[in-house]
Amino acid sequence: MNNKLLIVGTMAYDAIETPFGKVDKILGGAATYIGLSASQFSLDCAIISVVGEDFEEQHLELLRRKGIDLSGVEIVSGGETFFWSGKYHNDLNTRMTMETRLNVLENFNPIIPDHLRTPDIVMLGNLSPDVQFKALEQLKNKPKLIVLDTMNFWMEHFRSRLDEVIAKVDLISINDEEARQLTGEYSLVKAAEKIHELGPQYIIIKKGEHGALLFHDSKIFCAPALPLEEVFDPTGAGDSFAGGFTGYLTQTGDISFRNMKSAVIYASAMASFTVEKFGTESLINYSSHSMDNRLKAFKELTTFDIEIQ
Amino acid sequence: MNNKLLIVGTMAYDAIETPFGKVDKILGGAATYIGLSASQFSLDCAIISVVGEDFEEQHLELLRRKGIDLSGVEIVSGGETFFWSGKYHNDLNTRMTMETRLNVLENFNPIIPDHLRTPDIVMLGNLSPDVQFKALEQLKNKPKLIVLDTMNFWMEHFRSRLDEVIAKVDLISINDEEARQLTGEYSLVKAAEKIHELGPQYIIIKKGEHGALLFHDSKIFCAPALPLEEVFDPTGAGDSFAGGFTGYLTQTGDISFRNMKSAVIYASAMASFTVEKFGTESLINYSSHSMDNRLKAFKELTTFDIEIQ
Repeated sequence: MNNKLLIVGTMAYDAIETPFGKVDKILGGAATYIGLSASQFSLDCAIISVVGEDFEEQHLELLRRKGIDLSGVEIVSGGETFFWSGKYHNDLNTRMTMETRLNVLENFNPIIPDHLRTPDIVMLGNLSPDVQFKALEQLKNKPKLIVLDTMNFWMEHFRSRLDEVIAKVDLISINDEEARQLTGEYSLVKAAEKIHELGPQYIIIKKGEHGALLFHDSKIFCAPALPLEEVFDPTGAGDSFAGGFTGYLTQTGDISFRNMKSAVIYASAMASFTVEKFGTESLINYSSHSMDNRLKAFKELTTFDIEIQ
Repeated sequence: MNNKLLIVGTMAYDAIETPFGKVDKILGGAATYIGLSASQFSLDCAIISVVGEDFEEQHLELLRRKGIDLSGVEIVSGGETFFWSGKYHNDLNTRMTMETRLNVLENFNPIIPDHLRTPDIVMLGNLSPDVQFKALEQLKNKPKLIVLDTMNFWMEHFRSRLDEVIAKVDLISINDEEARQLTGEYSLVKAAEKIHELGPQYIIIKKGEHGALLFHDSKIFCAPALPLEEVFDPTGAGDSFAGGFTGYLTQTGDISFRNMKSAVIYASAMASFTVEKFGTESLINYSSHSMDNRLKAFKELTTFDIEIQ
């Protein structure tokens, strides 16, 4: 029997402009990327989210074909799906949000269907801390692992509610600037220590093209990002990372630090696929063969032979 | 018999201000850091440089005690030693040069004593490309490996002379911004390809707190920097890296890509020592015991267990 991953997050339509091209309306959203990424692993995977009446049947079908349970996705009649529009600068390392239309997300009250209330692992995608909190309250058991993603917006405007969520999760996954903002510490080692005091036993700090750091109990693991010739569209990289991380952990059912290190490598591999194409294209056409090649690349990238006394 | 490392570079006095403190006159210079770092390995090591009459005998004695041959260091009577003054911003990732007094460096004409003209490895520290070129011309044999460090200033003002030097070296070691400036490519993978076309078979791109990348023949190795609680003074980190890298290669006499990967780890370890104290203090008080601990930390930081088919 498969282990169960429950994903709470946004489903969206995005408009994206990068130096390489422009799309006006493309499938997006944290839960979409997380789900597409996680569903590459052997698991039972479900999404809790909300969309409008405009959300296309072909996109629901696409996610269902990947084996994702969408019974927890509310479709608001007469409502419009969350829309995000962003433009990347030339270096692709910084982006500007052009427009955010919350639409149906504004009054989202997550309802977890009964059969999804006993997940092994929960992935809270970047979303209002209030929705994240309400989702956690509906669980029947304490899951093996609860993973939280969030962003600077929630830190600035909803800090106290966010702190309540942070206190309830086992692992937080944020980027370096967010870790600094959350703690006021420039050193990421110190930032991780401070975040640990807020609750999470495990902290992942994502550094984009510089990889990611996993902290636990004074141990640190450092995964590089795969050096790529060309980054085409960074949208969804962090969510694909989260999906690969929780997908691998759910498949293996092993949340030891040792296995989390492997999960970070799978996560980085999934992120590297995503940024090579526009939007969700790479994830949709993903093959496990290319994963083997990418894992080999990570091994070569990081392995060195030094005998230590 | 030991292998021979020849270092060409500056010896200086520095004034440094960081958020943690301020020093008015402290031993510095690329060749000084490279020499102190390299001399931790088993090798014959010599410096080609120039100082003024003000250079203190205690500092010459300090370098000699580390086994560094200073017969190629010219002492200009009546001259003043190269002086650099810099101030680090709060994040310690950016610095401002407050003052540069070239002094005796301005008319430096490097003369390599006869017994130093057959080195196994040459390390050209950051310095005028003209001096670097003149030093290479005096070698009697082609060394096993010539390593070049340089900076944006020489790229902007002395590009054609710099290109002549680059064409003659086997490995170039620069930071990410310099690699981008040298090639006009944002992607470091593409930048490394372009630099390869200029001559060097091996390219190291240093990324400060994000570690370093080693490129050769479509292979890439990625070494993290050791995540540190506190960086006290980043001055000399790149030079300590260069000294550790060339020191380890000179000791082992093995310039295979496989061994270069180990050398990058030793290099990162030396850099991590340097930034924990002001100026050269850590290098002067270095113990091989702490190296073992640091190598262990690098192993733990990078090792993961994934079986690859």
